[in-house]
Amino acid sequence: MIKEKKIIQNDSAPGPIGKAGTRLGAVGIVKTQVFTFESLKLESGEKFGPVTLAYETYGCLNKDKSNAVLIVHALSGDAHAAGVHEGQDNLGWWDAFIGPQKAFDTDKYFVICSNILGGCKGSTGPVSINPKTAKPYALDFPLITINDMVNAQRRLVDHLGIEKLLSVVGGSMGGQQVLSWLVNYPQNLCSAVPIATTIKHSPQQIAFNEVGRQAIMADAHWKSGNYYEGSTPSKGLAVARMIGHITYMSDKSMAEKFGRTKKVLGEPFKFTADFEVEGYLRYRGDNFVKRFDANSYLYITKAMDNFDASGGRSFEEVLQGTKVKVLVISFKSDWLYPAYQSKEIVKACKLAGVETTYCEIASTYGHDAFLLEVEEETHLIKHFLKKVFYAYEVTGDYGA
Amino acid sequence: MIKEKKIIQNDSAPGPIGKAGTRLGAVGIVKTQVFTFESLKLESGEKFGPVTLAYETYGCLNKDKSNAVLIVHALSGDAHAAGVHEGQDNLGWWDAFIGPQKAFDTDKYFVICSNILGGCKGSTGPVSINPKTAKPYALDFPLITINDMVNAQRRLVDHLGIEKLLSVVGGSMGGQQVLSWLVNYPQNLCSAVPIATTIKHSPQQIAFNEVGRQAIMADAHWKSGNYYEGSTPSKGLAVARMIGHITYMSDKSMAEKFGRTKKVLGEPFKFTADFEVEGYLRYRGDNFVKRFDANSYLYITKAMDNFDASGGRSFEEVLQGTKVKVLVISFKSDWLYPAYQSKEIVKACKLAGVETTYCEIASTYGHDAFLLEVEEETHLIKHFLKKVFYAYEVTGDYGA
Repeated sequence: MIKEKKIIQNDSAPGPIGKAGTRLGAVGIVKTQVFTFESLKLESGEKFGPVTLAYETYGCLNKDKSNAVLIVHALSGDAHAAGVHEGQDNLGWWDAFIGPQKAFDTDKYFVICSNILGGCKGSTGPVSINPKTAKPYALDFPLITINDMVNAQRRLVDHLGIEKLLSVVGGSMGGQQVLSWLVNYPQNLCSAVPIATTIKHSPQQIAFNEVGRQAIMADAHWKSGNYYEGSTPSKGLAVARMIGHITYMSDKSMAEKFGRTKKVLGEPFKFTADFEVEGYLRYRGDNFVKRFDANSYLYITKAMDNFDASGGRSFEEVLQGTKVKVLVISFKSDWLYPAYQSKEIVKACKLAGVETTYCEIASTYGHDAFLLEVEEETHLIKHFLKKVFYAYEVTGDYGA
Repeated sequence: MIKEKKIIQNDSAPGPIGKAGTRLGAVGIVKTQVFTFESLKLESGEKFGPVTLAYETYGCLNKDKSNAVLIVHALSGDAHAAGVHEGQDNLGWWDAFIGPQKAFDTDKYFVICSNILGGCKGSTGPVSINPKTAKPYALDFPLITINDMVNAQRRLVDHLGIEKLLSVVGGSMGGQQVLSWLVNYPQNLCSAVPIATTIKHSPQQIAFNEVGRQAIMADAHWKSGNYYEGSTPSKGLAVARMIGHITYMSDKSMAEKFGRTKKVLGEPFKFTADFEVEGYLRYRGDNFVKRFDANSYLYITKAMDNFDASGGRSFEEVLQGTKVKVLVISFKSDWLYPAYQSKEIVKACKLAGVETTYCEIASTYGHDAFLLEVEEETHLIKHFLKKVFYAYEVTGDYGA
């Protein structure tokens, strides 16, 4: 049952088949676009630029520009949320949720997915060329925050001519961005959907990120971040990713997926991957280093750890007067972003008089559930967006 | 409250004060001893030797040799369970439990703590000199198992002239050894106390160990284990230890111990330890590498992962006819060795007709609780041992 669902998520999805038999997802062939602007004032006070953001869009913006939904991604995500790129076979990371009749119905909504400042998937990040030195920034890249990422996204949304988003939606670090939007740009949102996230990281969440960072910095190839001309700290980054993967699954989902393969004593190499779970982690780690930059991993996890949506005040206080409608989703077996953290968001919203709906989905997938519980999430999000869109159109409150 | 308890555990304990004001613990100055025997037939079939085990004893063996309790340690432990070594200040790792009137009352019992085969604290392990090459074994050391460790301990107990142990007690990997004793030497035990342990590791437990191993093997200084003449893989080992420490604590105990220190943006070094929890992990990691061998870490964690007390059968079946009395202890907030795993032990014991007592202690300390919940554990263990000792003496069943 679980394996079947996983396969749907990872390797196929309903959608048109292209000429060569390639999968296209429900939205077909898409292209990542970029938007560059001169500079951004960072939270630290520094003026930083130029800034490029990679993004994709699906569906069409309506005449009233009232149907735009912004999707923001998690730690290792990118702008490619749905469909496939020309000549390639990789479906977007949230493909099962985006397309006609799906959670984000592209017959109704204009869906934008924005990559983040600090990333390595087409947006400005440590691997980008520093115009002052004509070399990659590496650790000269400024220490950015979740609010900086969102401030850059606000410029992108502005550039697309959208004054008010119908919704901003994201899970995990995407959920942190959603909370940042909610706090900093309530006037530009009709609704917000933070999924499997938190107002601020607990010491345990910080600890897991910190060990990942230490693994990268322990790699002899890291060289204080100056590795772009030689070997990359791939072993350290792989270890960081393996730690991540353990925290994304639940004890139960691991037991169901892997079980315990029989041990083989006296292997040629003693510390070979005897158990299926070991092979899985090594595979995931090795794969990740091909597509991710170690310095980006450092900067992004640090931004996650430093984030506090309440900015040192109480979250309830920060939300006072907010008219944005909120849907909070958590998952029962998610121990990395436990349900109690989502309930803290809900409680603050309710106390601040914010119209809030909460659902804890009874999933066994752990934190990964936000990518995998397609049916349940689709039901919740579809219904929620429909209600918000209807209210928005009826009140005629376009871009107030 | 928690910090206070921690302080008692880590830095002081009631006990006599030595001449220079040093702490001595309740048992005073102790000395680690060694026992060497020619060879051991390993589970793999290989005949391996010579084997040395380091051990300590506290209290006196009675005339009937009926009051011996064997304490076995966890992954990073050693034979030094109580008191201090001459001229040193480090109390044994379970000092709060051993001494007159304590859980293991040295006025009544003869307490032995044995280090493990494969370790690096005075027993034969990868760092030991291979008599065939006159160099450290490194990865020529054989792949040992928990049963091998216990078979070696059986030889030590035999050497001490003890036919039947009053009890064997241990937490975590110590608990795995207890289960191995229970299965392989029931005739040599009156009772067994497995604490916060499991019949066999789940994929999640294997996964955490595997990432630790990967971190060590990713270190450029590891050199396939041949590092004894140069720099050691200390960064990799530190990362492995940091991962361990996160899993030893609970989300709640971390929150209570560390909270979130204020972030400081724009530090001289960007990835410095901003949060207290980061500093703690780095300190723990750095400290560990001074006292532990990376290859031992690989061998021991692999033995833990490979262990299956039921040997492929059902644990209930394996225990049929066992006369040993069992006390199983688990901790509510222990997510590394969750209570359901202890309940599996209890269930199998009960179904096999073994006299079994179970207690889940309502601790917030996570897996570390087995080292920290002194009062509750003392109450349980003291009472249990008293009953077992009384029954043993009354029935006169000495070494049957």
